[in-house]
Amino acid sequence: MIFRQLFDKNTNTYSYLLADSQSLDAVIIDPVREQFQRDYKLIEQMNLKLKYILETHIHADHITSAALLKEATGAQTAISSHDGSKNFDTQLNDKQILEFGRHKITCLKTVGHTNSCMSFLVDNMIFSGDALMIRSCGRTDFQNGSNKELFNSVRNILFKLPDHTLVYPAHNYEGFTNSTILEEKNYNPRLKLTNNFSDFACIMDNLNLSLPKNIKVNIKINQNIGKI
Amino acid sequence: MIFRQLFDKNTNTYSYLLADSQSLDAVIIDPVREQFQRDYKLIEQMNLKLKYILETHIHADHITSAALLKEATGAQTAISSHDGSKNFDTQLNDKQILEFGRHKITCLKTVGHTNSCMSFLVDNMIFSGDALMIRSCGRTDFQNGSNKELFNSVRNILFKLPDHTLVYPAHNYEGFTNSTILEEKNYNPRLKLTNNFSDFACIMDNLNLSLPKNIKVNIKINQNIGKI
Repeated sequence: MIFRQLFDKNTNTYSYLLADSQSLDAVIIDPVREQFQRDYKLIEQMNLKLKYILETHIHADHITSAALLKEATGAQTAISSHDGSKNFDTQLNDKQILEFGRHKITCLKTVGHTNSCMSFLVDNMIFSGDALMIRSCGRTDFQNGSNKELFNSVRNILFKLPDHTLVYPAHNYEGFTNSTILEEKNYNPRLKLTNNFSDFACIMDNLNLSLPKNIKVNIKINQNIGKI
Repeated sequence: MIFRQLFDKNTNTYSYLLADSQSLDAVIIDPVREQFQRDYKLIEQMNLKLKYILETHIHADHITSAALLKEATGAQTAISSHDGSKNFDTQLNDKQILEFGRHKITCLKTVGHTNSCMSFLVDNMIFSGDALMIRSCGRTDFQNGSNKELFNSVRNILFKLPDHTLVYPAHNYEGFTNSTILEEKNYNPRLKLTNNFSDFACIMDNLNLSLPKNIKVNIKINQNIGKI
């Protein structure tokens, strides 16, 4: 397996490039428009055949490079099947399996941050988007977010994965690059096992966060695979 | 093997925490003073027994947290044996081997960016400091830097490692987290195999970089394991 974690410093976004080291079939998860040149050059230098461009959800804080990568490589765009997914080539269902070379991606519906949230399990790595983050999680106050659904997604789907599963989120702000399910069960201040739902809801309802800049425009563009 | 790559956004510095997953014996490479609380908390949460605090070289752009980590954990500080190394617990020689649990660290003298530069080989990962960076390398115009020595270190030491060896540098500015020896042989604009020494020297002699802020103070403090 070829695996590259890529960072967009402006928006603190992680993108992930994965490929089969034999066939060179590849997927990219959550690519960022401003990093298209960087990412495409890397794909070219490594001779990768990009098969899928996956989004963990419709992002509000940055614009995807899905349209640019699709045009450059012919890869298919894919996202969870939900009301904003009609412009993507593939609408993914819960537990659907995609393949790249010898590797499988299991798509897991993990809604709650938004209604388009999906996590992708590849070997012992879970690409958890904004559902489960390192010692954190996505906010639940826009795009049909729901405390109840996010709590359920993390506790009953992600926390059921093996303890040693590596957690690779869509964002981090403190310089962490990954975590494990076990660590998040023990130390995630919002979602650790010693918190019950009302502890979680109380934290989430009192975050007092301002809205991301350009949220409405970004969502509209990202629903159209990042075409500006 | 437990492996964590940690980023300091202010100075674009990567630190690395490695541990044996059975014995929990651990080492940290190039820790940053401003991130001491983050890193120490992680070490505590993971129940790691920090054995060594390794520096790839005396840094000019940030201050190490070696002194703070040593005080908090009792770990040994270690750096290449050179004229500024007397305050470190261990002075490392070329090809010296350190152990943490079931894992070995092979220390490789890779001078040229500075005269204290050492790379650390652990399994298929090379922690290359500022000698070999992703599509780049450290400058050679301070702390006894030398184009000739850096070219030799990369070409005759690092590029002799297996092609699939993962390169983890001390810094990156473009959002890359790692690379491979093969990619750097092919695509490093300064050190790729199609460049000869005069190509390299011409590039390095025309970088026209300003000096890092506080370089003199930082070097002095880092030579004293980050004691302020």
